Amino acid sequence: MSDNERLLSVIENYLALAELPAEPELLYAPIGYSLAGGGKRLRPMLLLLACGIFSDDVQQALPAAAAVEVFHNFTLLHDDIMDNAALRRGKPSVHAKWGRNVAILSGDAMLIWAYRLLAGVPAVALPRVLETFNGMALEVCEGQQYDMDFESRPKVSVVEYLHMIEQKTSVLLAGSVVIGAMLGGASDEDCRKLRNFAIELGLAFQLQDDLLDSYGDERLGKAIGGDILEGKKTYLMITAMSRADDATREELRRLLADATMLPAEKIGAVKSIYDRLDVPRLTEQQIGLRFERALGILSTLSVGAARTESMREYAAGLMGRKK
Amino acid sequence: MSDNERLLSVIENYLALAELPAEPELLYAPIGYSLAGGGKRLRPMLLLLACGIFSDDVQQALPAAAAVEVFHNFTLLHDDIMDNAALRRGKPSVHAKWGRNVAILSGDAMLIWAYRLLAGVPAVALPRVLETFNGMALEVCEGQQYDMDFESRPKVSVVEYLHMIEQKTSVLLAGSVVIGAMLGGASDEDCRKLRNFAIELGLAFQLQDDLLDSYGDERLGKAIGGDILEGKKTYLMITAMSRADDATREELRRLLADATMLPAEKIGAVKSIYDRLDVPRLTEQQIGLRFERALGILSTLSVGAARTESMREYAAGLMGRKK
Repeated sequence: MSDNERLLSVIENYLALAELPAEPELLYAPIGYSLAGGGKRLRPMLLLLACGIFSDDVQQALPAAAAVEVFHNFTLLHDDIMDNAALRRGKPSVHAKWGRNVAILSGDAMLIWAYRLLAGVPAVALPRVLETFNGMALEVCEGQQYDMDFESRPKVSVVEYLHMIEQKTSVLLAGSVVIGAMLGGASDEDCRKLRNFAIELGLAFQLQDDLLDSYGDERLGKAIGGDILEGKKTYLMITAMSRADDATREELRRLLADATMLPAEKIGAVKSIYDRLDVPRLTEQQIGLRFERALGILSTLSVGAARTESMREYAAGLMGRKK
Repeated sequence: MSDNERLLSVIENYLALAELPAEPELLYAPIGYSLAGGGKRLRPMLLLLACGIFSDDVQQALPAAAAVEVFHNFTLLHDDIMDNAALRRGKPSVHAKWGRNVAILSGDAMLIWAYRLLAGVPAVALPRVLETFNGMALEVCEGQQYDMDFESRPKVSVVEYLHMIEQKTSVLLAGSVVIGAMLGGASDEDCRKLRNFAIELGLAFQLQDDLLDSYGDERLGKAIGGDILEGKKTYLMITAMSRADDATREELRRLLADATMLPAEKIGAVKSIYDRLDVPRLTEQQIGLRFERALGILSTLSVGAARTESMREYAAGLMGRKK
């Protein structure tokens, strides 16, 4: 077991031991169900790894690590209502399983539960940690609102898209590493640098997610093309729209609106336009650029290279790359 | 202007000055709209009055006072979605005005905003205040869940009903006075006593609300009978059901289910059963008992009688009584 695998199992244990009340069942059962749903535990991992850069005591950061994971799952729970998504990680979403009202209320309780966990950090750090958490949480809501605004807009620029995913994804990663670093005793400057590290890593991660949805991950053999079939505004689609000439743009719009085409045929046609416009390579380039920037920032921290080793390894593993 | 009126205007000013961001508009406009909707500002008033019992500096408690008011309005916003309520204080509810998704997300942001305000209390008090707030907030969610459970249950006992409104209403009043007292420097024992004071006052207040809905408040000339027409399980209805013989209980059920009856006729028929079963007098008695208990607790605090004068006056005004 590597150090990072060991850290992950510490998080899983801590989350599993969080004693949720049994009653009222319809309030708390959906919270337990959401938290047991798995996922990479990306945010608490980043929080603990950031703490570990500056301190050998990462135990003290566990309540905050659990808080960011609970907060993240709360956002998924409410997002699934808003997006009308029936599945989450291959299982029925909370609103599909228990109904809309239960999902709204247990999501609210889950957000409060995150704050209850957060209150377990050392008292001396609490004011700054709470302030960081609040700012992060509000920005995540803003990102979700911009995302909903986008879906109803005919045109979105690449810059606007990057800003939206920065708020929706990167901000929570950034808040996690900053809270971890604070708890580890990092200077304000190191906190700021780690924040930028997480913003870049989050963008790389999200763009890779967009790319894999259309081009697949051979290692996983995952079904591909879901974003294309849903007509989602992804980095690939927005890049294609911005690079296409008028005729190609028209063809893309026609393809997306076509309800009679077979799924595989539609995916193939859109991807052949992506390929013609060099979209996959440009996306790869952007991912590589963001990832290298993130790693570069780690080297500028006020600590020796050895202390950032675990974080580098984790970030590389996340992106399926060598560090 | 009385002292308490002055305190209310301090709260109104503080809330009005809370600078909500302008963008994204669909996230923040509903929060401003909810907070501008008025109401008695009961919870922040109780918080500041509780602080004032122990300290002459109530300014320091303003962020917490605003936090409990924002939290209360957040619960109303999400409750209105769950109850499908189109109106709130005579204006369109947020979900009726902006749609369900906007209401879910801006409610979430409002809950986070409450925590952001709370973070403004003096750092030394923050850990205890945050813990109290979290416990209170979770209990309010539990109360709302029990309330929803109740609506689908054929039978609810008086004791269960009182427990539910204790969680749904009293707990938030109790949390408010305890936070105010903590910030004023009260002892743990005085905090506990004030908690009980607020639980009793909250029950009295809620039962009075139930009574006024069916028997009206002549001073206000408010329309009456809404709870009866909706078939709501109120203290009056539950007391009537528990006191009625089988035939009367059947008659009540038949009346509530009758969709062809004229509203005024249905209200009159139900109320004449209430009267026959002595329900209004028993409710008055229960209200008086709870209110007297609440005032009695105030006399046992470790401070002189003069310091509790404003709280007494406020509680009496709330109940439309002489103190």
